[in-house]
Amino acid sequence: MSSDNNKLSLDSIRDSLIRQEDTIIFNLIERIKYPLNSTLYKQPSSSSWNISGSLFHCLFQETEALQSKVGRYLSPEENPFFPDNLPASIIPPSKSTHILHPAAESVNVNEKILDVYIKQLLPLFCTEADEEGNFATTASCDIQLLQALSRRIHYGKFVAEVKFRDCTDQYKPLILAKDSDALMKLLTFEAVEEMVKKRVAKKAMTFGQQVTLNIDDSTKEVKYKVDPSLVSRLYDEWIMPLTKLVEVEYLLRRLD
Amino acid sequence: MSSDNNKLSLDSIRDSLIRQEDTIIFNLIERIKYPLNSTLYKQPSSSSWNISGSLFHCLFQETEALQSKVGRYLSPEENPFFPDNLPASIIPPSKSTHILHPAAESVNVNEKILDVYIKQLLPLFCTEADEEGNFATTASCDIQLLQALSRRIHYGKFVAEVKFRDCTDQYKPLILAKDSDALMKLLTFEAVEEMVKKRVAKKAMTFGQQVTLNIDDSTKEVKYKVDPSLVSRLYDEWIMPLTKLVEVEYLLRRLD
Repeated sequence: MSSDNNKLSLDSIRDSLIRQEDTIIFNLIERIKYPLNSTLYKQPSSSSWNISGSLFHCLFQETEALQSKVGRYLSPEENPFFPDNLPASIIPPSKSTHILHPAAESVNVNEKILDVYIKQLLPLFCTEADEEGNFATTASCDIQLLQALSRRIHYGKFVAEVKFRDCTDQYKPLILAKDSDALMKLLTFEAVEEMVKKRVAKKAMTFGQQVTLNIDDSTKEVKYKVDPSLVSRLYDEWIMPLTKLVEVEYLLRRLD
Repeated sequence: MSSDNNKLSLDSIRDSLIRQEDTIIFNLIERIKYPLNSTLYKQPSSSSWNISGSLFHCLFQETEALQSKVGRYLSPEENPFFPDNLPASIIPPSKSTHILHPAAESVNVNEKILDVYIKQLLPLFCTEADEEGNFATTASCDIQLLQALSRRIHYGKFVAEVKFRDCTDQYKPLILAKDSDALMKLLTFEAVEEMVKKRVAKKAMTFGQQVTLNIDDSTKEVKYKVDPSLVSRLYDEWIMPLTKLVEVEYLLRRLD
């Protein structure tokens, strides 16, 4: 119970979101070691592979099924990308009190995340090439990164819940009027967003540097493993807008 | 062909080993966000789970089977933890020339790595607790980290091959005499090992710091996400000795 109350303070939510930035940047750096490997995400042209959908789609779906058996999707922080026909968990659900409104389960923007990831993010961050020998490792980096992005974005449910509880009187009329635009405006704090963009760029510089023991290397031109300005853009154009979309979707169902 | 020759220069091998340090430290930081979760690695006491072996064992084995289908183990850099009954790859093997001696395939110390990991490393790095809700995410961090450790340690095959080619006259008599101790001595460079230990500690400090935008935070006591001295120890006591074990095992079979 105390850990649930704890989870509901805006401070602990903020701490978790900040920590998740590190996870996303680590996973991003690891993914872009490999080139785009676009064959992974394409419908196979030859029927010899004997799979439906892309290689990545198959692998991701089967990975989720495996993780579902170990209870991944019992956690309110986790949202599946392929929610249909997931096998049941062999671990019983823990008896924690639910802090989110039951409608939270129906808020899932993973289809959008996956689409943006394959069509926009990968081409932006990766060099164009195919390295067949690294398809499997590339795909497992993708899965880790997508799951980290999804967790971060769907954390918007917790953000929305705590904001709703803190200012119910402000949110209630907008929810009843189904006024998405006004809700979005109420949830937007430009100064905070600017700070996030600066912080993630700084993290990209810190985590993406080449660490050596030579002191005189510090005078050399620094080459980062990931472009810090692109990490800012990732937050600005995709992560933060999608998080707010989750918040609005959640709030619209909050009084159901 | 050029990339194969490239792989065989000691410089490119060293670059890869250095880059793999970052991967290992990122994955280590991510794993130890979670507590030990020892239930994952234990034989289940209740038969209700209906699995043989530990939950982690099952999940890891099924993950490898999945990745094998996408060709993970066609790469000479990848070695399975559960090599028996792996499904065939649906991707055909690429036609790269083989740079390692065919005996390389029989060198696999993953059983040792897994044993050390569960019995020694996890208790050293993790806080003692069970968080049932995070079993699935913990296990997927474990798998990423174990695969990174395994790749790094089995890279010893490439190190040994290039050393053998560069100084065949020195190695040949020791191999013929099956003199493991002399081979181990010939492969050991204490000054290099000291440098690696220092570098990985510096990386742990860099990647494990809390990055904030506040400038005055630099005067505060720094708290790292992973203890840099433990990362040094990880290399000193486990990664480097196991790599040299791989090198010796490979060399002993090099003239077969």
